[in-house]
Amino acid sequence: MRHDNLPTLEVCASPALLHLYNVPASIVVIIDVLRATSTIASALYNGAARVIPVDSVEACIRTGLETGGLTAGERDGKVVEGLQHGNSPLEYPRSFIEGKTLVLTTTNGTRLLHKSAGARQIITGSFPNLSAVCDYLTAQQLPVILGCAAWKDRINLEDLLFAGAVAERLAPHFHVHCDTALAAGQLYRLFRDDLFSAVRKAVHYERLAAFGLEEDVRYCLTPDIAPVLPLLQNGALKAAAR
Amino acid sequence: MRHDNLPTLEVCASPALLHLYNVPASIVVIIDVLRATSTIASALYNGAARVIPVDSVEACIRTGLETGGLTAGERDGKVVEGLQHGNSPLEYPRSFIEGKTLVLTTTNGTRLLHKSAGARQIITGSFPNLSAVCDYLTAQQLPVILGCAAWKDRINLEDLLFAGAVAERLAPHFHVHCDTALAAGQLYRLFRDDLFSAVRKAVHYERLAAFGLEEDVRYCLTPDIAPVLPLLQNGALKAAAR
Repeated sequence: MRHDNLPTLEVCASPALLHLYNVPASIVVIIDVLRATSTIASALYNGAARVIPVDSVEACIRTGLETGGLTAGERDGKVVEGLQHGNSPLEYPRSFIEGKTLVLTTTNGTRLLHKSAGARQIITGSFPNLSAVCDYLTAQQLPVILGCAAWKDRINLEDLLFAGAVAERLAPHFHVHCDTALAAGQLYRLFRDDLFSAVRKAVHYERLAAFGLEEDVRYCLTPDIAPVLPLLQNGALKAAAR
Repeated sequence: MRHDNLPTLEVCASPALLHLYNVPASIVVIIDVLRATSTIASALYNGAARVIPVDSVEACIRTGLETGGLTAGERDGKVVEGLQHGNSPLEYPRSFIEGKTLVLTTTNGTRLLHKSAGARQIITGSFPNLSAVCDYLTAQQLPVILGCAAWKDRINLEDLLFAGAVAERLAPHFHVHCDTALAAGQLYRLFRDDLFSAVRKAVHYERLAAFGLEEDVRYCLTPDIAPVLPLLQNGALKAAAR
């Protein structure tokens, strides 16, 4: 084998496959491009003190009361009854979110995050913080699992494209011996100059477009518009010092 | 939704994801490009009476005795002790296999086949019988699941490429609302003119090349070299009338 001295980089395309990977040894990158991890990047880049991801509306309300945080969550494109805000990354400009705690309920992203408990480190990734994620992983030199949140365990194109972007960027610094990483990297190379056109064909896009969220999708596919590194510590994501 | 009158076509990238799909309503295409389903196509095209897939060496020996069939199976590139033949598609020319029963032990392909029990129909697919599979599916007009056997549940490139080849070919006749099918189709388009170069980068290729099986791989990536439609009936694969 070549690259024996380099840490491994692998892509896990669905939470239902995570048990095949060595989570305790690795940094797991939670990827939920549309829209959870893009919104997390946006809020933290704009100065949120922390983002607490939770998996239900009940937990969101309870945690909001306990922490004094803003509660946020959508179902079918609308703010959930009992919560205050939505899942759009565009809802969290600096003037609004700076210094505050955001309690965010998402389904797929939070589920993968909980499944990744026990990982060496957990960070979140999306196109808005692509370079921050790549720079961090390169500096850490630890095994990496790029974990796609997918959609109810179904593989989705947008998360795979982001995993491919990272895999392509990091290939020189890691031992990539994983067909999912190979496939994702090739898909990213194919579509890198027009991610929006690619994602327009994806199953999830139809769902979001029906809610009028095309502008959200464009934000979520814009590299490095929110350069921040969200690191999970004690159940909350905070911007790591860089 | 467009295409409401067309049957669905989906790609399942790993046996560990099969529970997400409506197996009872569908034709499941078992895909194990390197090498089980390529060898099955080769043997049946060359006149084998039937191929009985089994999941262990013990079952292979027992079924061979019960049926008078030839037993075949490899581990680490060598014929397993107690069996008669190997897993190579090149081992089964007409002069040898015509009229005979082949009892084949494979790991990933057979595992997916057993998981697919209860499917409306089960057939096997590989590049050597690509067009036969596509023609059959087009004629049946039933929901299709292209099931990749993968490698111990890990997604592999070669099965995904074959699924992509079928998805691309059948797109006009089916409702393809599945990101895995979309991704696989794009990968196939990217590599269709040089599948061997693509698969050389795959994890499984290194394993086979180490056993000196490059010629096998080339056969397994040759479209329509064994035009036959293997259909599972009562536990055995037989060439369907065409």
